[in-house]
Amino acid sequence: MTVYKLTIRYDGGKYHGWQFQPGVPTIQGALDEAIERTFRQTTRSLGCSRTDAGVHALGQAAQFEVDSELPPKSVKGALNRHLPDEIAVDSVEIVPPHFHAIRFARKKLYRYVFCDSPAKQIFRRAYCWHVRFPLDVERMQAAAAHLLGTHDFVCFQTKGAERESTVRTLFSLTVRRTEPLEEGFIHLEVEGDGFLYNMVRAISGTLYEVGRGRREPAWVAEVLAGRDRQKAGMTAPPQGLFLVRITYPDPLPPPDEPPSPA
Amino acid sequence: MTVYKLTIRYDGGKYHGWQFQPGVPTIQGALDEAIERTFRQTTRSLGCSRTDAGVHALGQAAQFEVDSELPPKSVKGALNRHLPDEIAVDSVEIVPPHFHAIRFARKKLYRYVFCDSPAKQIFRRAYCWHVRFPLDVERMQAAAAHLLGTHDFVCFQTKGAERESTVRTLFSLTVRRTEPLEEGFIHLEVEGDGFLYNMVRAISGTLYEVGRGRREPAWVAEVLAGRDRQKAGMTAPPQGLFLVRITYPDPLPPPDEPPSPA
Repeated sequence: MTVYKLTIRYDGGKYHGWQFQPGVPTIQGALDEAIERTFRQTTRSLGCSRTDAGVHALGQAAQFEVDSELPPKSVKGALNRHLPDEIAVDSVEIVPPHFHAIRFARKKLYRYVFCDSPAKQIFRRAYCWHVRFPLDVERMQAAAAHLLGTHDFVCFQTKGAERESTVRTLFSLTVRRTEPLEEGFIHLEVEGDGFLYNMVRAISGTLYEVGRGRREPAWVAEVLAGRDRQKAGMTAPPQGLFLVRITYPDPLPPPDEPPSPA
Repeated sequence: MTVYKLTIRYDGGKYHGWQFQPGVPTIQGALDEAIERTFRQTTRSLGCSRTDAGVHALGQAAQFEVDSELPPKSVKGALNRHLPDEIAVDSVEIVPPHFHAIRFARKKLYRYVFCDSPAKQIFRRAYCWHVRFPLDVERMQAAAAHLLGTHDFVCFQTKGAERESTVRTLFSLTVRRTEPLEEGFIHLEVEGDGFLYNMVRAISGTLYEVGRGRREPAWVAEVLAGRDRQKAGMTAPPQGLFLVRITYPDPLPPPDEPPSPA
């Protein structure tokens, strides 16, 4: 038995999210089909993050097990040939059998892309949230500071996929314009040890309220302390969200050491 | 009667080119429908460049005549509301009745986007020609130098839409990588007083031969002198081409002066 770890990029626009569902296009479904064509064996891959419908990835991580072994370079080539245009495999490696894409993940980095340009968006409309008000990035950054560190983030969790604990640690949270490179584009980047369901989109929708001037930066501290999803901002739309990078420990923990929960 | 001049951006991927054709989506068709909804009057706009199926624009110019007059700002807002997601109007101005979007154009700037990254293209696959060989940009730039100035460019003309004269003047032709901004992307930008049918795509396909190392830069001078379309490179695919900017004289020539041919 061979376990492969993959790094995957995708344009999630046409897909019903990561998670396999019969009869609709999903990233996992497309990947498993490509694996089957490559290895002539049915398998079910495991993704680190179950990204939602419409969400994109620059660095999703996944693993799968097969009976045979092919060189990683050949696997990468074959998977990319069999995958649809919207999905690419960027790296393939063979990992020890005890590897677990979810439990071994130490950090996840997400990017949320806003656009506040007054001009109609044409070429990147599928990859940002085009808001109708100019955003004040310094106010958003001031608000973001209240979220850094370890907190109960239940106020940013959409019901329906509750985790046992709603405490998470955010290592960094930055909001910056990408000008002069791109006029009117703003990147929110957040790295943490894990995220609740819709948490990055809820943080984005909350900082948006501050950026457009309807709330003060200090309001975000109140929202966090209130532990009430209703008090936070809206869940920002999926097409602005990119899963950028997942970090695993190097070297991996040995098989006998129980992995810490991600 | 009022004559409006528009500057238009579009993602041409889903369109059968600029030129109206019944029963298929065209940029002109969509624009004329938006004009009709705005002014409640049927009209036929005139575009400066009849861009081909799949070609994009950042700065197409067009004009149309209507009986009534609305402020340019209101026209811009109304057109953008009525236009599909892939088309945006960036500027609207009222011009003198003798204005002619084709005959008054003095310069046109096109960009052709190559990508030679070995990684599969996901997010920008619809906006570049993803080539399978690394391109040597310095060789392409050396080849480009042979095309500057006034020449008979018949070797770069696709048959089917011949112009009276095949002599054109290129004011500039640059080939450069856009790194570190974008890995693997190369922009060819060419500005001239006018272009023959498919000329920019034929120049791009010809410089591609030099960039990938199959031809020497001096070969381009031979191609030009040979005046034979068969001797030049292929017509590069449409999705890499952007009409960037059209320049009009400022002030416009008076009505009595016969405009020079574009």
